[in-house]
Amino acid sequence: MTFIDRGVSDVVVIGAGIAGVKTAIELTKSGISNVILEARDRCGGRLYTEKLKSGVDADLGASWFHDCLDNPMLKKYFESGKIKFNFDDGRFSYFNENGLIDDNEKLKPIANEIKLYLASLYDKLTPNEDISVKEAVYRYIKEKRYLLTDYQVKYIPQLIRYFEMWIGSSWEILSGRSISADAHKGRDAMVLNGYQTVFNCELQELKDAKGKDNISAFIKLKRIVYKISWNEKSQLIEVYSKYANITEVYKSKYIVVTVPLSVLKLSSGEEGSIEWVPPLPASFTNSISNVSFSNLGKVFFEFPKCFWNLEDDRLLSMAKVEEEYYEACRYDKEDLCTYKFLKCRQDVPIRENEVPNGLDYTVLFMNLAKPTQKPIILALTSSPLTQYIEQASSNIIFEVFKPVFARIAGLPESSIPQPIEVKTSKWSNDPFARGSYTGVTIGDSYEPFLEEVLNPNKIFDGRGRVRFAGEGTIDDGNGCAHAAWNTGLREAEIIKRMINRAKL
Amino acid sequence: MTFIDRGVSDVVVIGAGIAGVKTAIELTKSGISNVILEARDRCGGRLYTEKLKSGVDADLGASWFHDCLDNPMLKKYFESGKIKFNFDDGRFSYFNENGLIDDNEKLKPIANEIKLYLASLYDKLTPNEDISVKEAVYRYIKEKRYLLTDYQVKYIPQLIRYFEMWIGSSWEILSGRSISADAHKGRDAMVLNGYQTVFNCELQELKDAKGKDNISAFIKLKRIVYKISWNEKSQLIEVYSKYANITEVYKSKYIVVTVPLSVLKLSSGEEGSIEWVPPLPASFTNSISNVSFSNLGKVFFEFPKCFWNLEDDRLLSMAKVEEEYYEACRYDKEDLCTYKFLKCRQDVPIRENEVPNGLDYTVLFMNLAKPTQKPIILALTSSPLTQYIEQASSNIIFEVFKPVFARIAGLPESSIPQPIEVKTSKWSNDPFARGSYTGVTIGDSYEPFLEEVLNPNKIFDGRGRVRFAGEGTIDDGNGCAHAAWNTGLREAEIIKRMINRAKL
Repeated sequence: MTFIDRGVSDVVVIGAGIAGVKTAIELTKSGISNVILEARDRCGGRLYTEKLKSGVDADLGASWFHDCLDNPMLKKYFESGKIKFNFDDGRFSYFNENGLIDDNEKLKPIANEIKLYLASLYDKLTPNEDISVKEAVYRYIKEKRYLLTDYQVKYIPQLIRYFEMWIGSSWEILSGRSISADAHKGRDAMVLNGYQTVFNCELQELKDAKGKDNISAFIKLKRIVYKISWNEKSQLIEVYSKYANITEVYKSKYIVVTVPLSVLKLSSGEEGSIEWVPPLPASFTNSISNVSFSNLGKVFFEFPKCFWNLEDDRLLSMAKVEEEYYEACRYDKEDLCTYKFLKCRQDVPIRENEVPNGLDYTVLFMNLAKPTQKPIILALTSSPLTQYIEQASSNIIFEVFKPVFARIAGLPESSIPQPIEVKTSKWSNDPFARGSYTGVTIGDSYEPFLEEVLNPNKIFDGRGRVRFAGEGTIDDGNGCAHAAWNTGLREAEIIKRMINRAKL
Repeated sequence: MTFIDRGVSDVVVIGAGIAGVKTAIELTKSGISNVILEARDRCGGRLYTEKLKSGVDADLGASWFHDCLDNPMLKKYFESGKIKFNFDDGRFSYFNENGLIDDNEKLKPIANEIKLYLASLYDKLTPNEDISVKEAVYRYIKEKRYLLTDYQVKYIPQLIRYFEMWIGSSWEILSGRSISADAHKGRDAMVLNGYQTVFNCELQELKDAKGKDNISAFIKLKRIVYKISWNEKSQLIEVYSKYANITEVYKSKYIVVTVPLSVLKLSSGEEGSIEWVPPLPASFTNSISNVSFSNLGKVFFEFPKCFWNLEDDRLLSMAKVEEEYYEACRYDKEDLCTYKFLKCRQDVPIRENEVPNGLDYTVLFMNLAKPTQKPIILALTSSPLTQYIEQASSNIIFEVFKPVFARIAGLPESSIPQPIEVKTSKWSNDPFARGSYTGVTIGDSYEPFLEEVLNPNKIFDGRGRVRFAGEGTIDDGNGCAHAAWNTGLREAEIIKRMINRAKL
């Protein structure tokens, strides 16, 4: 194994996603030397776009500029004219086993009411008390049974499962608190010409700031960081990476760690894990064990022709009704009171050697045919279906979704054409992602973790040299690309202040 | 003028609306003597139902059990089986000059976004800063112009005016703060068999508590209270009322004043005004001058047949686009920045001797044909149209609304049949109501008033003998019937505690 000492810079940034690149832009503009180490053979992290056969851009990572009232990147990119946006908040159709649900069944107002119910519930609970979304729905039904028709009792639980797709966790493990704390700040603008275009603009900004176009000079790809240590003698942080059969060490006064939270959670020895010498403080590792990572999955289907309603922006195929629960709710049986069947609080696993039926899951479709004029539809999935899908072949994936397509089309399965292409996200199996983004499983406590990453003063020499950035390290917009961008800005500012103070 | 001394009771309640009756129920159940004085020749106050020609109940006052997650009366009446309810929260259609607006124009998500925009705006402002809903909408458009299509810029202001019907004030004077503070707690259940049925059940509860069925023994109708004075010598409050040519005085240790806020605001000499001897403290009268009363109007139309879409629960006819504003917004002209045309902050009056055109106003229709199976539609109006309508003849009213009906029906005016009956609310002209319910005009400060009515310790001998109840005297559910009911409960409890303390 060759060992190379790559010398000293002011800052080493770990991860070339949007948080890392934004950090580097701001540092570079302030004349602070920096280098980015990236484990993958590409930049962009979870902003990642591939092309479908038709040439349409398929975002396998982030797709939306969320919180459009409060999103600093949105205005920048609207005005740049480089990004095509679409507000996909028009018609949203729901389907059960009988097909399209008529609006007059009034399920949507119930969904809003359950959110309000949860907000008032959590107003009364301590910050540590939590129930799953599933338990929350059945608790609501029990308490407000007299306000609901049998139809609503039957279908509202499965409709509520569209919340699964906010995060990517099944309602068995998804925190009811997280739904109640919904703080969307305006509409969501979907990027049509590839989120990677946004990333590439940021990258260009970095190149311009660096004054050179050869990014390999300042973004080192395929460098898998495996150790971060503090050298007391030199007063420098040493970042060790493996690159083919070469071991490199990069030294700096400060580091910005932008790896996903799920990677920080890895145990020693797991692929992608990072050893800290001296180890991270117990308070840090404890706090991280109480936050979770989720599995929003994406499957793009390109068909020879459209067979679904072109006027819909979104289509929700509701998981099949749980008859046992429905009967208990309908007749207000005692076993609903005790919630005894709600206590598992873990994903119902997919059995080995069995192809799941898509109708057993809630699947949210984005009708991309509407903005692109091409026969493309995007399925969003949550755990545990995501993990299955992300490992399956195109044929198997189509088999899983075929009955769902038949439902939303109102056609027999035999009428659903074979897709031209099936393209799926792979985040759950990616050793450098290990899921899609920061999630909210019941019982999570996110605030202690945030307190640790924002005030990392117990690490190394206690002077805050180790900084954290990325979508999981911020409360406001947590999980969103613009929030990751904001954290890059935040950490760059902090480092600038520290360096300027050190110069005094 | 004959003068009659009606003797002494523990409590005199002024007003036989639901707040007054609930107060009396609770007092009576605790063995506290009381009498209710009511100015009108009927009980019920602003719970008031008449029958249409078809026999359908027409609520000219309250229609809904609001906040169904948190409404103590709702569960009681659901379980009593005496009230028929309907959740009218299904399809809500919007109409502009071209007829029905397609959902794909995506105006509704913008409306939600404007509410969020306002919430974040008021988070930054001091409690005294406020702008009208109209100014708020145009401010949003200016700031977020890049997020909006021309179509949205054109129509969103008029769509937002459905907020007018929450209160009954035009957007020129309606507080943007009030919209941002929207705190609906669940769905709204409309009463189908007359809200007066609810009131009559409460009345029966009072009769049962009193142990007699002759309500004239404890509810005195047609007693117009004109003076309330404190007799230092007898340590009693004296309530003077006029009844035909008889003057009566009722004496008590405590009084509960449930007259509408608008009546408390009247100047001496105005019909319905009450003189206080000694006068109410300046802090009280000052606080009351900074709260307002609104003018939600109702017009029931019964037709020989339906000509509108039976599937809609609600239909909104949007006021005509203000071209000057639209052009300024569309091209982002400077005069939109200065909001110079937004500074009037008062209702645009209806010109004398001119019949208004309904298309110039936003009108919200409740499709009562859906729940009643009869060709009945209810129009809700705000100021200044309400005041006009409430004085107009049926023929004139039909003339005002005819073009609006033509719009929602998609038919020429000549095809709109003559209504069999037109029945309108009269609250704005009623000397004992003078409007519909407590409102929120820009610049109102409601909290100081609430502080005064909840802690009336500066009135008379400073011992809190004068109590206030009614929809305007509570923050939680303000303006709603269940809130008025809650205030009756509240004040009865307070008086019970005071009487028990006095006995010690």
